[in-house]
Amino acid sequence: MQDFYQIDNLDKDILHALMKNARTPYAELAKRFDVSAGTIHVRVEKMKAAGIITGTKVEIDPKKLGYDVCCFIGVNLKHARDYPATIAQLTQFEEVLEAYYTTGNYSIFIKVMTRSIEHLQDVLINKIQAIEAIQSTETLISLQAPIQRTVMP
Amino acid sequence: MQDFYQIDNLDKDILHALMKNARTPYAELAKRFDVSAGTIHVRVEKMKAAGIITGTKVEIDPKKLGYDVCCFIGVNLKHARDYPATIAQLTQFEEVLEAYYTTGNYSIFIKVMTRSIEHLQDVLINKIQAIEAIQSTETLISLQAPIQRTVMP
Amino acid sequence: MQDFYQIDNLDKDILHALMKNARTPYAELAKRFDVSAGTIHVRVEKMKAAGIITGTKVEIDPKKLGYDVCCFIGVNLKHARDYPATIAQLTQFEEVLEAYYTTGNYSIFIKVMTRSIEHLQDVLINKIQAIEAIQSTETLISLQAPIQRTVMP
Amino acid sequence: MQDFYQIDNLDKDILHALMKNARTPYAELAKRFDVSAGTIHVRVEKMKAAGIITGTKVEIDPKKLGYDVCCFIGVNLKHARDYPATIAQLTQFEEVLEAYYTTGNYSIFIKVMTRSIEHLQDVLINKIQAIEAIQSTETLISLQAPIQRTVMP
Amino acid sequence: MQDFYQIDNLDKDILHALMKNARTPYAELAKRFDVSAGTIHVRVEKMKAAGIITGTKVEIDPKKLGYDVCCFIGVNLKHARDYPATIAQLTQFEEVLEAYYTTGNYSIFIKVMTRSIEHLQDVLINKIQAIEAIQSTETLISLQAPIQRTVMP
Amino acid sequence: MQDFYQIDNLDKDILHALMKNARTPYAELAKRFDVSAGTIHVRVEKMKAAGIITGTKVEIDPKKLGYDVCCFIGVNLKHARDYPATIAQLTQFEEVLEAYYTTGNYSIFIKVMTRSIEHLQDVLINKIQAIEAIQSTETLISLQAPIQRTVMP
Amino acid sequence: MQDFYQIDNLDKDILHALMKNARTPYAELAKRFDVSAGTIHVRVEKMKAAGIITGTKVEIDPKKLGYDVCCFIGVNLKHARDYPATIAQLTQFEEVLEAYYTTGNYSIFIKVMTRSIEHLQDVLINKIQAIEAIQSTETLISLQAPIQRTVMP
Amino acid sequence: MQDFYQIDNLDKDILHALMKNARTPYAELAKRFDVSAGTIHVRVEKMKAAGIITGTKVEIDPKKLGYDVCCFIGVNLKHARDYPATIAQLTQFEEVLEAYYTTGNYSIFIKVMTRSIEHLQDVLINKIQAIEAIQSTETLISLQAPIQRTVMP
Repeated sequence: MQDFYQIDNLDKDILHALMKNARTPYAELAKRFDVSAGTIHVRVEKMKAAGIITGTKVEIDPKKLGYDVCCFIGVNLKHARDYPATIAQLTQFEEVLEAYYTTGNYSIFIKVMTRSIEHLQDVLINKIQAIEAIQSTETLISLQAPIQRTVMP
Repeated sequence: MQDFYQIDNLDKDILHALMKNARTPYAELAKRFDVSAGTIHVRVEKMKAAGIITGTKVEIDPKKLGYDVCCFIGVNLKHARDYPATIAQLTQFEEVLEAYYTTGNYSIFIKVMTRSIEHLQDVLINKIQAIEAIQSTETLISLQAPIQRTVMP
Repeated sequence: MQDFYQIDNLDKDILHALMKNARTPYAELAKRFDVSAGTIHVRVEKMKAAGIITGTKVEIDPKKLGYDVCCFIGVNLKHARDYPATIAQLTQFEEVLEAYYTTGNYSIFIKVMTRSIEHLQDVLINKIQAIEAIQSTETLISLQAPIQRTVMP
Repeated sequence: MQDFYQIDNLDKDILHALMKNARTPYAELAKRFDVSAGTIHVRVEKMKAAGIITGTKVEIDPKKLGYDVCCFIGVNLKHARDYPATIAQLTQFEEVLEAYYTTGNYSIFIKVMTRSIEHLQDVLINKIQAIEAIQSTETLISLQAPIQRTVMP
Repeated sequence: MQDFYQIDNLDKDILHALMKNARTPYAELAKRFDVSAGTIHVRVEKMKAAGIITGTKVEIDPKKLGYDVCCFIGVNLKHARDYPATIAQLTQFEEVLEAYYTTGNYSIFIKVMTRSIEHLQDVLINKIQAIEAIQSTETLISLQAPIQRTVMP
Repeated sequence: MQDFYQIDNLDKDILHALMKNARTPYAELAKRFDVSAGTIHVRVEKMKAAGIITGTKVEIDPKKLGYDVCCFIGVNLKHARDYPATIAQLTQFEEVLEAYYTTGNYSIFIKVMTRSIEHLQDVLINKIQAIEAIQSTETLISLQAPIQRTVMP
Repeated sequence: MQDFYQIDNLDKDILHALMKNARTPYAELAKRFDVSAGTIHVRVEKMKAAGIITGTKVEIDPKKLGYDVCCFIGVNLKHARDYPATIAQLTQFEEVLEAYYTTGNYSIFIKVMTRSIEHLQDVLINKIQAIEAIQSTETLISLQAPIQRTVMP
Repeated sequence: MQDFYQIDNLDKDILHALMKNARTPYAELAKRFDVSAGTIHVRVEKMKAAGIITGTKVEIDPKKLGYDVCCFIGVNLKHARDYPATIAQLTQFEEVLEAYYTTGNYSIFIKVMTRSIEHLQDVLINKIQAIEAIQSTETLISLQAPIQRTVMP
């Protein structure tokens, strides 16, 4: 519905490069795509202004930090109308990385990472299920995550 | 089970800063944490060597690129043993961003982003369900994603 | 159980014609079916009197009015006996087009049309799930509706 | 995404009137809305051209024609990819009034009307379940349909 | 839909008496209901002719014959169209007392009585699940049957 | 666990005959099985004393009395401990013919016969779901009942 | 159904003592229960002969041997009749500790212990789901096992 | 995560022998494995100290003690946070042999053994479902348990 900055092929090429390595010098990109470094600079700024590029982040490997268990938890509320309040409470638990309001039979669908099965048990019993509004939870533990990537412009 | 580079508080501070903005100059970090720039450099290199820092990426906003629909799809296979081959096929569809092998009653659980409901229909009917090994799919469309963040070291 | 006006073949022909185009002149129908226009008139009036024909309406295309999202929502109540009161509340939301009391495991089954995914989210969170008696909902979004027709007499 | 003829309040008033009774004379509408009959004519033609008004139909009451049983049937296919062929077969059964391709755990979701429980049994066993590609069906019989209306522009 | 012999209060009284004890002499019924024995006879014959009374049976207590386990089994077929053939096979197992074709998510729903848990296991593994067309079964064992009665005219 | 009167082949023959037609004269049975009428009498009395034969009833055809709809209803209670009180209430509704306490995911499983779909709707909304302790119900309507028989001794 | 050696209170006391510590000397038991050591001996032999006592085992703690993950897996077969063959295959995997043929909607229900989440993934993908007859599995990982004991005589 | 006493092949051999028969004399084991009895003694003590060997128990056959019915019961709580209190109550019922806090859609998953179907009914209605915090239960009765063994070191 809203207006998009309609990216062209050069924008795409720049995005693809920076999504792989955000530290690539503009000079190198300019050379690779046969344009001036100034052009690269202008395009990146335009995409930032349009909200397409939202930042630059180092990426970390959760496993290397000791986060061994990744799971999805379907949460059922006692009353559907407790949704906003429950989100506010879940936000306070750092192990809750993502939360979704989805069609389907869960009230809330969340992604959680913990250091171990014991840690997960602690998060479930002492944090998530301690929320008054939650009736029940169903946990899907991820045993393998063979595809992990982002939208390609 | 494996050996970890056990990060300390300075490492954590550096990670937190770079996970917000990977382009922060080391000099600024050095000043902020009251150490030398060399120390920042050494720590970052150690965390790279340990596999904790895996790269630096620009972040993009899929909605601004026109990706309006985000959904999770539970996939059921005709035969459990077709799992590896099906993952190989799903990897070829750029709309499939994440795939998980989970406990619970789906054979595979995937995250998909499309430009519109029509695009989702096309991906489901002409790509995913065209895979011979797939018996059925169940789609949870995300209507809202109030929490989106990464593991905090 | 009740008495029917038992329609004959001429009635059926007239109904089929008027279900396609209610503005077809009786004279044209008379000619097509080889009877007098008066006969057409009498038959239509009889079918109106019997309650078979209940009115004449222009048909609209919801998509052309911006209604992009069509879905079915299974509603579960906290107490089965809240059914009548909940129907009264649902009737006040113009996005709720149809409601059914069905066998099967939903308390109420409704059809909803909204302008967009965001609009659906608003209807779900701020209208439907704000009803005190509703415990949970499950939403099936229609991605395609290849058959849409009415009973043929 | 596509271009809409953006209707205004007069268009809405006209639509509301014709959706109640398509035979209302334009002169009466003109008087009611304080415009000329020519204006009414122009607006209706514009809405027809824009595809908003798609026709004029007599409405019938299925119960008065002996259709006592209304139900929704969730259809599961043996192979997801048999969807298009199965729709083609279902289209041939006049009792199948609507078919949807939905998110959720059915391959196809259809609405069926029959004259009686016996007729439904016949449609299920001898028509729908006779389709080779169908693995199973689940039927929700509607016992009451307290809300039945269309989108209001 | 079909024609009924419309029973009156005397018919009801007679039926109620004979449904409790079919051996009650007509003379006693005549005296109890203040009519002639001939009237009782006529009414009973009329109800037999109308198919309302279908026979007279001794009733037995399955538990006293050693049938300790009563259960309902939901049967899922590999292909919906195998329904008639599967019913024919189930009819050959004397432990299968009732079979229903129902709405809901089972292909066939049956009632089974066996002498013991071991007998049930034998019936399930060696009889029911040995039927080629059956994909899976789900067994609900009755632990208590607090209401057991027939339709009261 | 309890003591059984261990029936022999003659008992079985007698039972089979009386389960088909309870009015068969003992003389005829005696002749058929080549024993004295006194023996028949003794055996029947013994089986009555042992509780094997519990009575003699006329059988009726519910359809001929206008009972067109047969269904099974899974009942879920708000609290598992409300089971005994709910059974007491269900016993008061003559349309509830059988009730079971079963393993599986229903609190109570009942069999109901009604005169029509409308009657079923009335029983569900105004009788069963009006019970305070009931949270939800799931109805399986029987479309066909191809096997209906009793335990064979 | 079968004959039991009906144990008395002394038998129970002896069993309770030996179920806690099988190495308790008979002399100590004799003293504790105020009988002769010979009596203890006779009773233990009788319970062995009756099959009540089946052996003496050291007990181990799986966690101390590195078995960190305990789970239950519901197995669904493509064809119910493949049950015996599948059990034979599952018996070959030492991680499968228990298998049950249960009522409910799984074909087979098994208990599995593995050293880690990775080990579980390996067992599921490369052992269990590699069995041709298995259509799907559903895994419930135990996060805590607060009650673990045996039948008390 | 914790430190293990890493067992070697001799430890394994000893464990395997004692897990079959805990009363095997050390002298016999010494001879069998070609080491001194003292070595056996040292190894067993080390494994006891490490918590690997937790005791020695006679094993009993529940069926021989009259426990005929083995089942798994999924328990759903009204509020997830009632988990600890409910475990405390379940611990008081000797028929509840095992309890698990699992991922999946039950709040608690328990294993129960009873003497008969009637005994199970009593435990369910008068013990388990009498717990205030329990909303519902689902029982899977084991009809056969073809695999029953423990972790092999």
